[in-house]
Amino acid sequence: MLRTHTCGELKDADVGKKVSLCGWVHSRRDHGKLIFIDLRDRDGLTQIVFIPKVNAELHKVASELRAEYVILVKGTVGNRPQGTVNNKIPTGAVEVAAEELTILNPANTPPFEITDEIKTQEELRLKYRYLDLRRPSLQKNFKIKHKVYTAIRNHLNAQNFIECETPILTKSTPEGARDYLVPSRLSPGKFFALPQSPQLFKQLLMVAGFERYYQIARCFRDEDLRADRQPEFTQLDIEMSFIDAEDIFSLIENLMKVVVKDVLNIDLEIPFKRISHDEAIKKYGSDKPDTRQDKDKELLNFLWVIDFPLFKYDEEEKRWDMEHHPFTSPKPNDIKELDKSLGDIKANSYDLVLNGSEIASGSIRIHTKEMQEKIFKAIGMDKAETKKRFGFLLDAFDYGAPPHGGIAFGLDRLTAIFIKSETIRDVIAFPKTQKASCPMTDAPSNATEKQLKELHIKIR
Amino acid sequence: MLRTHTCGELKDADVGKKVSLCGWVHSRRDHGKLIFIDLRDRDGLTQIVFIPKVNAELHKVASELRAEYVILVKGTVGNRPQGTVNNKIPTGAVEVAAEELTILNPANTPPFEITDEIKTQEELRLKYRYLDLRRPSLQKNFKIKHKVYTAIRNHLNAQNFIECETPILTKSTPEGARDYLVPSRLSPGKFFALPQSPQLFKQLLMVAGFERYYQIARCFRDEDLRADRQPEFTQLDIEMSFIDAEDIFSLIENLMKVVVKDVLNIDLEIPFKRISHDEAIKKYGSDKPDTRQDKDKELLNFLWVIDFPLFKYDEEEKRWDMEHHPFTSPKPNDIKELDKSLGDIKANSYDLVLNGSEIASGSIRIHTKEMQEKIFKAIGMDKAETKKRFGFLLDAFDYGAPPHGGIAFGLDRLTAIFIKSETIRDVIAFPKTQKASCPMTDAPSNATEKQLKELHIKIR
Repeated sequence: MLRTHTCGELKDADVGKKVSLCGWVHSRRDHGKLIFIDLRDRDGLTQIVFIPKVNAELHKVASELRAEYVILVKGTVGNRPQGTVNNKIPTGAVEVAAEELTILNPANTPPFEITDEIKTQEELRLKYRYLDLRRPSLQKNFKIKHKVYTAIRNHLNAQNFIECETPILTKSTPEGARDYLVPSRLSPGKFFALPQSPQLFKQLLMVAGFERYYQIARCFRDEDLRADRQPEFTQLDIEMSFIDAEDIFSLIENLMKVVVKDVLNIDLEIPFKRISHDEAIKKYGSDKPDTRQDKDKELLNFLWVIDFPLFKYDEEEKRWDMEHHPFTSPKPNDIKELDKSLGDIKANSYDLVLNGSEIASGSIRIHTKEMQEKIFKAIGMDKAETKKRFGFLLDAFDYGAPPHGGIAFGLDRLTAIFIKSETIRDVIAFPKTQKASCPMTDAPSNATEKQLKELHIKIR
Repeated sequence: MLRTHTCGELKDADVGKKVSLCGWVHSRRDHGKLIFIDLRDRDGLTQIVFIPKVNAELHKVASELRAEYVILVKGTVGNRPQGTVNNKIPTGAVEVAAEELTILNPANTPPFEITDEIKTQEELRLKYRYLDLRRPSLQKNFKIKHKVYTAIRNHLNAQNFIECETPILTKSTPEGARDYLVPSRLSPGKFFALPQSPQLFKQLLMVAGFERYYQIARCFRDEDLRADRQPEFTQLDIEMSFIDAEDIFSLIENLMKVVVKDVLNIDLEIPFKRISHDEAIKKYGSDKPDTRQDKDKELLNFLWVIDFPLFKYDEEEKRWDMEHHPFTSPKPNDIKELDKSLGDIKANSYDLVLNGSEIASGSIRIHTKEMQEKIFKAIGMDKAETKKRFGFLLDAFDYGAPPHGGIAFGLDRLTAIFIKSETIRDVIAFPKTQKASCPMTDAPSNATEKQLKELHIKIR
């Protein structure tokens, strides 16, 4: 370890200690003959002072330091002179009188100032994302996202959930968006799809007897990024067997209570209110109403929206389609339910809305082959297509599939709301632009003819 | 919740209680007029008894139960008659006298018996993976993998590491294997690469000031799967700033000690032994020697292999290449080092070997532009190519890159060794065959002409 302490931890009690600190030159101030450096690392800022009469040579090197130089400083901790104590930072009572200085790496002048105060054009921020990420607000965002993930995992682990990974190179799942495809080298002319969600795999894990599954899973949707969307995003994916919707409500309410307490130190009131889809539309004109005005602008307002219709009529294609995905069960989960007119059937599904954003969505699933086939038929899928696309799921239902249900959270959105950001790009380390490209790495980029040939494809 | 208890928890103390249990019919035995069902769930087995004189109708339904039927049973817990207690299972002293029985889902006869005793052809196991995963050994494997992940995260979180996700849709990184490519719809003729490792991103996170990063990351390599490899696998990826190799050794030794204790309840001796690459080759003829015979077959024998050469001569291509990847620093991390004959330069890198398998590999990285450019030049990469492929990394080194280093673990392999399995397929829920295909979902599969057109590609 090159250092003895971080830049955030020295206090009065450390006065007199010989210390080594590493970090970035945050700022340099020349006061008469003294040079002051604010040295920054992940943990905080410490003031370093260079005194010419103590070491003239060192003072000269210090005068060459510029913003964002990476340095190693050895010296002795002292009290700051009276009147110069800075109460705004935890190390504000002390400073380090430098005795040795090593420039670990010099730095060019950054293309923008590393501060939260100045707005920089987003394309430039993304091109130099490694500098953008040094800003205090972004540093904080990723610490918060880490806390969100940790709180979720701790809670679910304690509830006997098993974290299990599902494939990224897989087959198309119908979540309503375009798939990203990956050409196969070993199966000429064939393609993997990147998962829009682990939906089918988590259901198969229930058939496999896992009973309580979760995964913080990467998902992929090749959409036009009009809204605040990203080609890849992260989902908390949960599935349980032998349960009903009330078990999901209770699990998620307790989970959110713990997460919000751990991360934001706010006490959430549970259970959350529920509103039917009909009532939400009638009263708010939205299936994800922001009901905060009813509660004097309470910071976090969670709301369950339930009793969605199972089907919706697609006017363009002149046929019925699912409101959610085709694995959602009707309410009650009974084959006779499907004798009703399709528009009248309610789904056993639920959305969780936070401050007007849909942050989670789930359902009790279909678990019998008979019901699943009826649903596919209702949305106009013929037997051959059903078998080709979902034959393995229908087969699985024939070998002892338990009743099961689950939910999936958009963790980028949830974290963005926690930090009061408008965009999920603020909680994704290396996001893409609206054109699904990365200005830093220049991805996507050209492939070589040799690569394309091996993959049995060519460019149109 | 459909049940009051799991099938693994009923004991003497529960005798007399009314309970509801859910699960799979593990076996049915007809003894005279009594029917015994072993009911199985994730947690264990409970014996259910159906007595005709108590309820003749129920007894008739019970006689129709077959293996793997999913049922809900309500009844009263009682002591098993003397002489019939089964000490091999935790619930072996009790049984549940059935009062209600619901068949939640019937089951066809499985294509193979769900037991660890019978060997089944792997292709069939993978086609019906949801049944294969019900086997006790596989159920156990995934509980162990979950424990490995949990122990790792708990330890690294306590050491102030930040878990951070890096992109899956990205640009090629040179780890020596073929990339999987993803055609871009919005950038015609261009492609994303799936990451062979998060190497460049974790280095950029160090430039960004994250200081201590980890991620349990999915990685992708399009290799011929001769050996026990998978197209996608999971890596524990770690990177730290302001450290040297000794810090990595100490971090990883403590991490392994905690993980092995938590998961296997074995006390590991640390520090691990170290052997130089030269000595390993001379003494064992291998750079990942299995040194267990020296230690009376100790179960887990960790060994650091250090002082690798930085370069290796590629006889086929008649040029020098890297022994590891081109971001590995020479030892010492000094530009003058590169004036030596290339074959004589040692790398500041380290492999961790467990029982003869390389389970982790890492290095102290290059962090200056000058050194990185010299390395690229040494392996024959010209300035234009260097700039095109790695310009963003070289740029980053110009804006205050801290000294940094890290390591990456193959978690599938580590878990496979823990459970004494020969193949990582036993610790991956939905693995691919040697031909990189999935017999269950039939991935990879055909794409539609519309999809290919949108992606600006066609099949050769």
